[in-house]
Amino acid sequence: MTDTVSRFGTVELPDLPEDLRARIGAIAEKSGFVPNVFLGLGHRPAELRAFLDYHDALMDSDDGLSKAERELVVVATSGANHCTYCVVAHGAILRIRTKDPHIADHVAANPWSAPLTDRQRAIVDLALALSVDSASFGDHDIALAHEAGLADQEIWDIGAITAFFAMSNRLAHLMSLRPNNEFYLMGRTPRP
Amino acid sequence: MTDTVSRFGTVELPDLPEDLRARIGAIAEKSGFVPNVFLGLGHRPAELRAFLDYHDALMDSDDGLSKAERELVVVATSGANHCTYCVVAHGAILRIRTKDPHIADHVAANPWSAPLTDRQRAIVDLALALSVDSASFGDHDIALAHEAGLADQEIWDIGAITAFFAMSNRLAHLMSLRPNNEFYLMGRTPRP
Amino acid sequence: MTDTVSRFGTVELPDLPEDLRARIGAIAEKSGFVPNVFLGLGHRPAELRAFLDYHDALMDSDDGLSKAERELVVVATSGANHCTYCVVAHGAILRIRTKDPHIADHVAANPWSAPLTDRQRAIVDLALALSVDSASFGDHDIALAHEAGLADQEIWDIGAITAFFAMSNRLAHLMSLRPNNEFYLMGRTPRP
Amino acid sequence: MTDTVSRFGTVELPDLPEDLRARIGAIAEKSGFVPNVFLGLGHRPAELRAFLDYHDALMDSDDGLSKAERELVVVATSGANHCTYCVVAHGAILRIRTKDPHIADHVAANPWSAPLTDRQRAIVDLALALSVDSASFGDHDIALAHEAGLADQEIWDIGAITAFFAMSNRLAHLMSLRPNNEFYLMGRTPRP
Amino acid sequence: MTDTVSRFGTVELPDLPEDLRARIGAIAEKSGFVPNVFLGLGHRPAELRAFLDYHDALMDSDDGLSKAERELVVVATSGANHCTYCVVAHGAILRIRTKDPHIADHVAANPWSAPLTDRQRAIVDLALALSVDSASFGDHDIALAHEAGLADQEIWDIGAITAFFAMSNRLAHLMSLRPNNEFYLMGRTPRP
Amino acid sequence: MTDTVSRFGTVELPDLPEDLRARIGAIAEKSGFVPNVFLGLGHRPAELRAFLDYHDALMDSDDGLSKAERELVVVATSGANHCTYCVVAHGAILRIRTKDPHIADHVAANPWSAPLTDRQRAIVDLALALSVDSASFGDHDIALAHEAGLADQEIWDIGAITAFFAMSNRLAHLMSLRPNNEFYLMGRTPRP
Repeated sequence: MTDTVSRFGTVELPDLPEDLRARIGAIAEKSGFVPNVFLGLGHRPAELRAFLDYHDALMDSDDGLSKAERELVVVATSGANHCTYCVVAHGAILRIRTKDPHIADHVAANPWSAPLTDRQRAIVDLALALSVDSASFGDHDIALAHEAGLADQEIWDIGAITAFFAMSNRLAHLMSLRPNNEFYLMGRTPRP
Repeated sequence: MTDTVSRFGTVELPDLPEDLRARIGAIAEKSGFVPNVFLGLGHRPAELRAFLDYHDALMDSDDGLSKAERELVVVATSGANHCTYCVVAHGAILRIRTKDPHIADHVAANPWSAPLTDRQRAIVDLALALSVDSASFGDHDIALAHEAGLADQEIWDIGAITAFFAMSNRLAHLMSLRPNNEFYLMGRTPRP
Repeated sequence: MTDTVSRFGTVELPDLPEDLRARIGAIAEKSGFVPNVFLGLGHRPAELRAFLDYHDALMDSDDGLSKAERELVVVATSGANHCTYCVVAHGAILRIRTKDPHIADHVAANPWSAPLTDRQRAIVDLALALSVDSASFGDHDIALAHEAGLADQEIWDIGAITAFFAMSNRLAHLMSLRPNNEFYLMGRTPRP
Repeated sequence: MTDTVSRFGTVELPDLPEDLRARIGAIAEKSGFVPNVFLGLGHRPAELRAFLDYHDALMDSDDGLSKAERELVVVATSGANHCTYCVVAHGAILRIRTKDPHIADHVAANPWSAPLTDRQRAIVDLALALSVDSASFGDHDIALAHEAGLADQEIWDIGAITAFFAMSNRLAHLMSLRPNNEFYLMGRTPRP
Repeated sequence: MTDTVSRFGTVELPDLPEDLRARIGAIAEKSGFVPNVFLGLGHRPAELRAFLDYHDALMDSDDGLSKAERELVVVATSGANHCTYCVVAHGAILRIRTKDPHIADHVAANPWSAPLTDRQRAIVDLALALSVDSASFGDHDIALAHEAGLADQEIWDIGAITAFFAMSNRLAHLMSLRPNNEFYLMGRTPRP
Repeated sequence: MTDTVSRFGTVELPDLPEDLRARIGAIAEKSGFVPNVFLGLGHRPAELRAFLDYHDALMDSDDGLSKAERELVVVATSGANHCTYCVVAHGAILRIRTKDPHIADHVAANPWSAPLTDRQRAIVDLALALSVDSASFGDHDIALAHEAGLADQEIWDIGAITAFFAMSNRLAHLMSLRPNNEFYLMGRTPRP
């Protein structure tokens, strides 16, 4: 039993280059804590910087796919990939974005049969097709998404987020990354 | 999106035969609610009765395997089987039995690599071997369990609980069984 | 090569509690022998009792699903799970119930493509969906069963028998349970 | 439910070219019937001729691997490939060659955990490694076979028979080939 | 790292029986080299002879399926089976037969989603269904082939070639067979 | 059959923001062509920018892992993921970096059993463990890498490159991305 945050150790915020210190400091100020993934990636500043840039380009938008739907893609594919860090951390964000205290547990435990709206189901099915058996991903999957009313830019968003978290999940597996304690309870009870 | 408790409907407590009404009533009194699995199985009283008998024979004991270790087997194999009801309901019980608010989320999301003690790891590995690819279960798995110090009666317990929840998980999938709202928060915060 | 009946040993009939002795004695009188599964489970009387109760609640009925169809579910899912004991023992019962000396070998060797009537195929397909990849079991499988004319109570029977033998198969794997010699020839030749 | 011998039809013995008619006639005389595989392949004489030549080159020898051990490879890999025709037909031959009425049912139902001698286990393990997940077959598998005392020519025999039945199993699946009724009982009871 | 042609050694052309020496000599004369598979199989002349006969019966024909389409089946299934020798050697032949320098790399890397004509796609889909998960091959696959306009004799050709290379791929894995250097560049550039 | 470069269309170099135009222009000048992946990602400049940054941070270094070894990770995992674009494009780069005209075809067709040096085998095995079945990635895989002499920073490189191409492979599957014609022949013949 290892009880460390990452198999490769972590950096402290002050040891990061200034731009990353500022950027992650802002996240910490908003959330009240520094998500462990940044401390685990921090010993490779160029990789962390690109990781943050890519993440923000994909996740910080309500254009087409809503932010809640983007988190749905993350939790569904991270559940299918059995990535504990991403399930716990993004499960918290999904609960907050949807104001639904149960959806993350449903989608993480079983993305294939979790009860969802038709649009959510089409989003998750497309994400799973690309995440789990990507070799047979094809026109059939795109056609099903179109039939469900998803536009090309939404399909790109779903696919690109799925791809990005295929990477993130594996980085977390590589580090054996431990989720911050703060995530487990976030969004489970109504905010006062 | 269906929002019912079970695909096959549920019974009300008063509609059960007297022995089951008393037995489940006692559970409800202790827990504060009737776990949905009983209401879903209730339209088949003989099956529900045998289910309860088998469950109690396997789970209500601290002889050899502790009650917490029994729940660990349930959550690990239900996580591998992607059974939302069992993950949520027995995750709650595991948190309570271990007084650890995080272990259930770790083991449910990824039973293969969750951080565990050596004894817990041996218990989970044996359970996964029988749960996931049971056709190749064999002397090798038993030998690994013995090497980890597990006694024959403990191995039986792990195997029999794994087998029982291979059934339970499939019953929950058959019903598309929804967990009670009460389970999600149980054991996540210290009791006053 | 082990040549014992069970990896965990067996009990003798006289060593069982009286109710189990009577119950299994009646089976032995009817069959001419005691099926090994009872002797293997016998060192845990409470578990054996619940096992028998559950088994009888599911298998001893011609209401909706015929007894032969119930055995078909057992042999198909036990074949998919590679459970030698259940294939041999329930293969024998299936031959007797159907008076077909070949169906059990076909269904056990390849449940996916064995030649069957349309109703039998729908029963087996539903059972395999829940047995093999239960995580993705869903409304689609239920809809296919309905289309094939299966009623809800029949679907429950198929699902519950599949679930019960997901357990039984794993108990047999746990014990490395050897089938009784009597099973191999039963139902292969016309009774005089 | 189709009840024909082959999805592509069969030929009658008199319609075969003379050399094949003589060759298969000799088999029929010895066995008392013409195995269906020859009638199913017979509409392509050149393929049938090569099939017979290859089969005989691999199976009609006691040099190194015994004939019974060769049939063991066939039944084990055909069981893993869920090929009903080969399991039933070669199961019969295995029973006759080993004079063991049960081994074929054990190995066909579960080649991974059937009770076998150490030499038989090594033979079956090598065959399964090449049959089921051939992409990762490698030096490790060869080394395990050597450790078990298998000589290079025996390893070749096991591998070549496994490869040949990877073909045969697929030909039988292609035809949906029905086993002859005679096979089911062969070798199950002592010959007078 | 082994750098030999075959794990079991090779024969020299002069050491083969006369008929095989003549036959393979003719191939060598035409190609400019002796494909390694013949030298690897050569220490078992009867097996090599049957291999050549079967191969020629299936591959040397433009009746129904064209020779290029036959090679397409080989490269697609060898790609799915991760057989380096067959991918490299038959990839070369496919490039030559189709005069398309890219198709072999596409089909070998990903037979499921390589861009193909509708007829080619139907051929490859049927071949993959029988090659990869042959146990569930059935009427559904035949029906899809018929819908795509494939005739029964073409379906047989596709199935039989798939079956033959299920064998060949495993023989190559058994030998850890190295492709001849000549194959890698064949058909990649226009012939003068 | 679609014959376009990407399912979502491509951008022309002049339509990119200035920094990307300069950056990709420099690549084009060096290579003689613009790799299609940049044109396919170009309609999302922020994503393309992060993609390039991440790629360069991982691939443009000979510190610890050599550039050839980094490409080996890419081709092995892209082969396992059946990503045609990455196999063809990075196969070309691997041939150039290793000056070995065959290694890319071997590793792409079968990364599990391609003939490699011990160090290369350890690198590829670690990459495959994280790429294919990432859920069970764990201390065991890290220990094997250490035993093979890989340092922690090399293990990180292997893991991070594997993760990045788990993303890239899925982006290519999403786009159904066609490799540039130039890649197929690169590194196959000695440069004058």
